[in-house]
Amino acid sequence: MAPEQITLYTAKICPYAQRTEIALAEVGATFKRYEIDLANKPEWYAPKVNPASKVPAIAYGGPDVAPEDASPDSIKLAESLILVEFIADLYPSSNILPADPVLRAKARFFIEIVSSKFTSNWMKFASGNPEVTHTTLLNGVDAIQDILPDGAKYAIGDQYSIADIAFTPFWARFMLVLQKGIGSYKDEERKNFLKAIEDPKFTKFNGYVQRLLERQSFKSTFHEDIVEAVFRRRFGVPK
Amino acid sequence: MAPEQITLYTAKICPYAQRTEIALAEVGATFKRYEIDLANKPEWYAPKVNPASKVPAIAYGGPDVAPEDASPDSIKLAESLILVEFIADLYPSSNILPADPVLRAKARFFIEIVSSKFTSNWMKFASGNPEVTHTTLLNGVDAIQDILPDGAKYAIGDQYSIADIAFTPFWARFMLVLQKGIGSYKDEERKNFLKAIEDPKFTKFNGYVQRLLERQSFKSTFHEDIVEAVFRRRFGVPK
Ligand SMILES: N[C@@H](CCC(=O)N[C@@H](CS)C(=O)NCC(=O)O)C(=O)O
Ligand SMILES: N[C@@H](CCC(=O)N[C@@H](CS)C(=O)NCC(=O)O)C(=O)O
Repeated sequence: MAPEQITLYTAKICPYAQRTEIALAEVGATFKRYEIDLANKPEWYAPKVNPASKVPAIAYGGPDVAPEDASPDSIKLAESLILVEFIADLYPSSNILPADPVLRAKARFFIEIVSSKFTSNWMKFASGNPEVTHTTLLNGVDAIQDILPDGAKYAIGDQYSIADIAFTPFWARFMLVLQKGIGSYKDEERKNFLKAIEDPKFTKFNGYVQRLLERQSFKSTFHEDIVEAVFRRRFGVPK
Repeated sequence: MAPEQITLYTAKICPYAQRTEIALAEVGATFKRYEIDLANKPEWYAPKVNPASKVPAIAYGGPDVAPEDASPDSIKLAESLILVEFIADLYPSSNILPADPVLRAKARFFIEIVSSKFTSNWMKFASGNPEVTHTTLLNGVDAIQDILPDGAKYAIGDQYSIADIAFTPFWARFMLVLQKGIGSYKDEERKNFLKAIEDPKFTKFNGYVQRLLERQSFKSTFHEDIVEAVFRRRFGVPK
């Protein structure tokens, strides 16, 4: 069964949305990309595409229409992790979700750890929420490193998978705001994190995230200048 | 590839754990069942089986050992939703997760709605948390009914799936505590919910949950007397 047409509603700033863009790049899918301006969402977006009014969302199948005119005959899907699994299911031979049930469970467990220990915390840190310190984030890094397999390139082995896809956009944005000093955190917190992460005990983790950031599917879907500009505006930190 | 040995660490009281028991019943798997006393967890459980020290967990493969002696050679997996997908992956012909990518995405989206609107709230309601009223729970019911297909038996169609499995144990426990008046909520809140749910506008939802509670795999894994007794103790509501 050949996949039907895919229209992706996305936004360059959004780490959730980038997950789906990486997945589509990895499987080599043809799709229409539609940028949603989150500061000024089109009126038709919630009623016609995603009632939750968030990116990412996919319109799948149905007639070949303009993205602004999403057809009632296409299937509308949302939630980044569900979309990434959907893309993996459409392109099983891409192996971004291997067939082995144990490896699949490991990929999903890695995502669970990333979600509970990192993606839920990094924006609170950047926003200066006093409950989330550099130690909270380091504990997240620790938990992730703990389940990284030894001597392998990626989260579940040498095969790049949905586990890596789920993490990369968040790590990239976190590094960007830390390295450029964008955010409402105390500068000491920022320095503490950047210093602590250099510790040799994080060698395995650091090798891993370096490989993540070098992956072509990530690089081609990460618009650093735009992400930086939006965060500078959001946190009131001009260049 | 025939599935290897499965040892399930579980507890009759726990709705997360019951998800895995329903899934194992649906696929007809042979497995060893080990009851963990949550009030008095065995010392070996966290170090040998699940570092998070929660049920459910599965030890998969490895040698045929007693559950108390989990082998380092078996693979340890945790998190109920991951385990339910794992069981579906081990037994694809059971169809509790159909092969069609769109149906799979729909099942996962149903679970997302159940998790964000219901399973995260029912215990807060039972505990009398003033932020979660009968209206909060009714909104959850509304959101679930909204994505139930019309004229179908279950969450994604006539095929019983992981979506139904994820919801049933929570709904059953919620109904139990409401109907028996067990909980720290105001009695008026309880009555308001039970009255409101009878409204004809919830006919589709009520038909659906009735089918869920009649399902053999649910009934054979729901130990009503034990659940009632534990909740009575927890909330200090003797018979
Ligand atoms: N749980 C969702 C989260 C998606 C999300 O929060 N997207 C943000 C942008 S990063 C959004 O669209 N927010 C709505 C808005 O900004 O109006 C997912 O995983 O897809
Ligand atoms: N997110 C977990 C939650 C599991 C969970 O919270 N289980 C409870 C019992 S219902 C538990 O084992 N708690 C630890 C304890 O009671 O000590 C899952 O979906 O499996």
